Amino acid sequence: MKAKVHVTLKNGVLDPQGKAVGHALESLGFQGVGDVRVGKYIEIELAETDPAKAKAAVTDMGKQLLANTVIENFTVEIV
Amino acid sequence: MKAKVHVTLKNGVLDPQGKAVGHALESLGFQGVGDVRVGKYIEIELAETDPAKAKAAVTDMGKQLLANTVIENFTVEIV
Repeated sequence: MKAKVHVTLKNGVLDPQGKAVGHALESLGFQGVGDVRVGKYIEIELAETDPAKAKAAVTDMGKQLLANTVIENFTVEIV
Repeated sequence: MKAKVHVTLKNGVLDPQGKAVGHALESLGFQGVGDVRVGKYIEIELAETDPAKAKAAVTDMGKQLLANTVIENFTVEIV
């Protein structure tokens, strides 16, 4: 099965990359663009066949490696 | 409204960052980890209130700035 992990900056953490994208969009003429936040999207193929065990394993991966939990949140979706 | 954009590498495009994450997960003792692909996840706040117009605008943003359409695909979801 496959896990989809979204890693996003926590609210209140400055996102200079998002700010840069927002300014670039304005420069390109796009109007009505508000806050832009840039995160990571990770797809992991897993040999595990039990969705509950897969989710537990990927949650561990998120805590240990995929996200910096001091400044980032992550969500795990098993498909 | 808000747009969620997923930018992923096209199939067949090498993903060294994904490979590095996969190897790091193995080094940490996670078993049964197959292919890992790392993409971007972008959230954009929009003043636009018409979902169809918002989706069209963000699709334009994707083509012009958010994704490199030579090697990347992107999907737009309006929420």
